[in-house]
Amino acid sequence: MIDRRGAFHALHRAGRPLLLPNAWDHASAAALAAGGHPAIGTTSLGVAAAAGLTDGAAVTAGETVALARRLAGLPVLLSVDVEAGFSDDPAEVAEYVTELAGLGVVGINLEDGRPDGTLAEPECVADKVAAVKAAVPDLFVNARTDTWWLSVVDPLPQTLARAHAYRAAGADGIFVPGTVDLAILRVLTERIDAPVNALYQTGGPGLTELTAAGVARVSTGSLLFRAALGAALAAVDAIRLGGPTAPAGLPSYAEVQALVPTGGD
Amino acid sequence: MIDRRGAFHALHRAGRPLLLPNAWDHASAAALAAGGHPAIGTTSLGVAAAAGLTDGAAVTAGETVALARRLAGLPVLLSVDVEAGFSDDPAEVAEYVTELAGLGVVGINLEDGRPDGTLAEPECVADKVAAVKAAVPDLFVNARTDTWWLSVVDPLPQTLARAHAYRAAGADGIFVPGTVDLAILRVLTERIDAPVNALYQTGGPGLTELTAAGVARVSTGSLLFRAALGAALAAVDAIRLGGPTAPAGLPSYAEVQALVPTGGD
Repeated sequence: MIDRRGAFHALHRAGRPLLLPNAWDHASAAALAAGGHPAIGTTSLGVAAAAGLTDGAAVTAGETVALARRLAGLPVLLSVDVEAGFSDDPAEVAEYVTELAGLGVVGINLEDGRPDGTLAEPECVADKVAAVKAAVPDLFVNARTDTWWLSVVDPLPQTLARAHAYRAAGADGIFVPGTVDLAILRVLTERIDAPVNALYQTGGPGLTELTAAGVARVSTGSLLFRAALGAALAAVDAIRLGGPTAPAGLPSYAEVQALVPTGGD
Repeated sequence: MIDRRGAFHALHRAGRPLLLPNAWDHASAAALAAGGHPAIGTTSLGVAAAAGLTDGAAVTAGETVALARRLAGLPVLLSVDVEAGFSDDPAEVAEYVTELAGLGVVGINLEDGRPDGTLAEPECVADKVAAVKAAVPDLFVNARTDTWWLSVVDPLPQTLARAHAYRAAGADGIFVPGTVDLAILRVLTERIDAPVNALYQTGGPGLTELTAAGVARVSTGSLLFRAALGAALAAVDAIRLGGPTAPAGLPSYAEVQALVPTGGD
């Protein structure tokens, strides 16, 4: 276990970032693992929507553990999106994350955005980070700040202040979704003494540019889940309209079957 | 409830077939319902693979009920793939289907193929059909024969014999996946006194040709699930290789969030 967690830490390298795709169910996780990705994350939007739950709500806590249990046997390093830890109590967050770590999870994303669209006080988030690191020291804690997503005024100084607070509390990485401005990412990677995680955005800079800006992890968030859903709708629309419906590389029935554990348990 | 089941029966019309897309989780079902489809099915492959289970195995029985419960609130008519009924005992199959019907399900697919690749005796399947219809008379029972999928010798006479046996036992529709030969479909629709369901195949005839052959339902099986999975893998490959990653019509975060029930319960 410690070796797997160490391997996950080592994948975060400025100059050669970890491309971390985000799965939402067993099939997507198994297919990404089979596709050669050494590590995968989960997408809270995808996990919640697949189950018919609201993203960011505490009701997804159980669903997240259930998914982690299902993915535990896959030959891939797994980092789990735990939103804001599903509690305001650092001890409860640590207890929840300890359960995930017991399933083999090597990292988590922990965010400071609240479902009501406000940011938690940085001290409260830092307390959660510290509690988790005290409980599971070698788990990779990726602290996410939602300064851009929640449109705070003058986000750069706030982001740096929060990053430093979370880092001081023990965070192993800092995740700043919502901006792919390369000049800003460069400031972040220069001023934060930890791997910086950027969220890939369609239409934004590519992996090469993000790499040049010094990020150590590039994640895909809900993009793959949304691409999947969009493709399903496009396929049935094509049938309805009589158009072609055979995208290149469509997995066969047998290939999908091969993604499930032998014996079906 | 009876009105919803009646509405589902009425959608099966030779000459104007029901295009029934198959969902595998809440998000895909909600998106298809939002896309204007009056009815959806489930795909046992998708449901099993999403959960990390083997398609065709009895362990998916619980998963299937759980999914039906999740989809019960959607504004769409729902038909559920129950494979071979997850039991060889007609009474147990009827009990299982009664539970689904209690959740609001308006139809089922019940197949004669076995996980071991053999066909069940037609009398055994007919007994299951009869037991289900006795328990829930107005449920649409779509009896599937796997004569083509399991490569029986001289499949047409066997298919007709089985269709007649299932119809005599009360089946409301006959599903013959595995062939999109229009001449064969024409024979089936002329010789079977019930709506015939064809499985759409990529590269095969389009909806117009299937309509002309007289089918009353065209379903998509695992195609949408496989298209979704393929698109997710293609998206992350495009990021890795630096290519474009914004397929037209990709649902936004907000659009995905809008698919979940208000209140997140």
